[in-house]
Amino acid sequence: MDLIKNLQDYVGSRPEKFFKNTLFHSERLLLGLNCLEPGQVQTPHDHSDQDKFYYVVEGQGHFWLGDDQRVVGKGHVVLAPAGVAHGVKNEGSERLTLLVGIAPAP
Amino acid sequence: MDLIKNLQDYVGSRPEKFFKNTLFHSERLLLGLNCLEPGQVQTPHDHSDQDKFYYVVEGQGHFWLGDDQRVVGKGHVVLAPAGVAHGVKNEGSERLTLLVGIAPAP
Repeated sequence: MDLIKNLQDYVGSRPEKFFKNTLFHSERLLLGLNCLEPGQVQTPHDHSDQDKFYYVVEGQGHFWLGDDQRVVGKGHVVLAPAGVAHGVKNEGSERLTLLVGIAPAP
Repeated sequence: MDLIKNLQDYVGSRPEKFFKNTLFHSERLLLGLNCLEPGQVQTPHDHSDQDKFYYVVEGQGHFWLGDDQRVVGKGHVVLAPAGVAHGVKNEGSERLTLLVGIAPAP
């Protein structure tokens, strides 16, 4: 496995559902990309035993986080500790690219 | 704790040693920032039971990873699985800002 990766090589899209790609997967950590085209959504859900973060690489996302909702763009981190429901919708006009980590891996 | 953070609010510098800041800390995951001014270095080391990643937010780093060395810039991920020695030096002329995750937390 190449341990040094250019994120742009892992970006992609699917018409029917948001696109996922894996950068690293061990029992301790899952690190990957979620790419949402305009209008695509990741339905709110939670992980009872895993902490998760999103880092907005490009674009803008409408995030749900527990009872909170916020629209944030590039350069923001969204933290979803175990048990906190989280999801995101791309309401913008450009692709939303998210670096996503889950620990331990699901 | 605010679960949505703008990375730029957590960037900083120290003259004597590279700057660290914590974004999230649980037993499962430590997520933070490492900021290296030109010339600053994080000496190669390893974590025997933790997987680690760096994401280059801005600037360029000379990374050591096991027996490999590579200079990479913004948009790259460097993965250091448990036991793989890793370190980084800022040989450029601008600040190197790294989003860093370690799972489980040290």
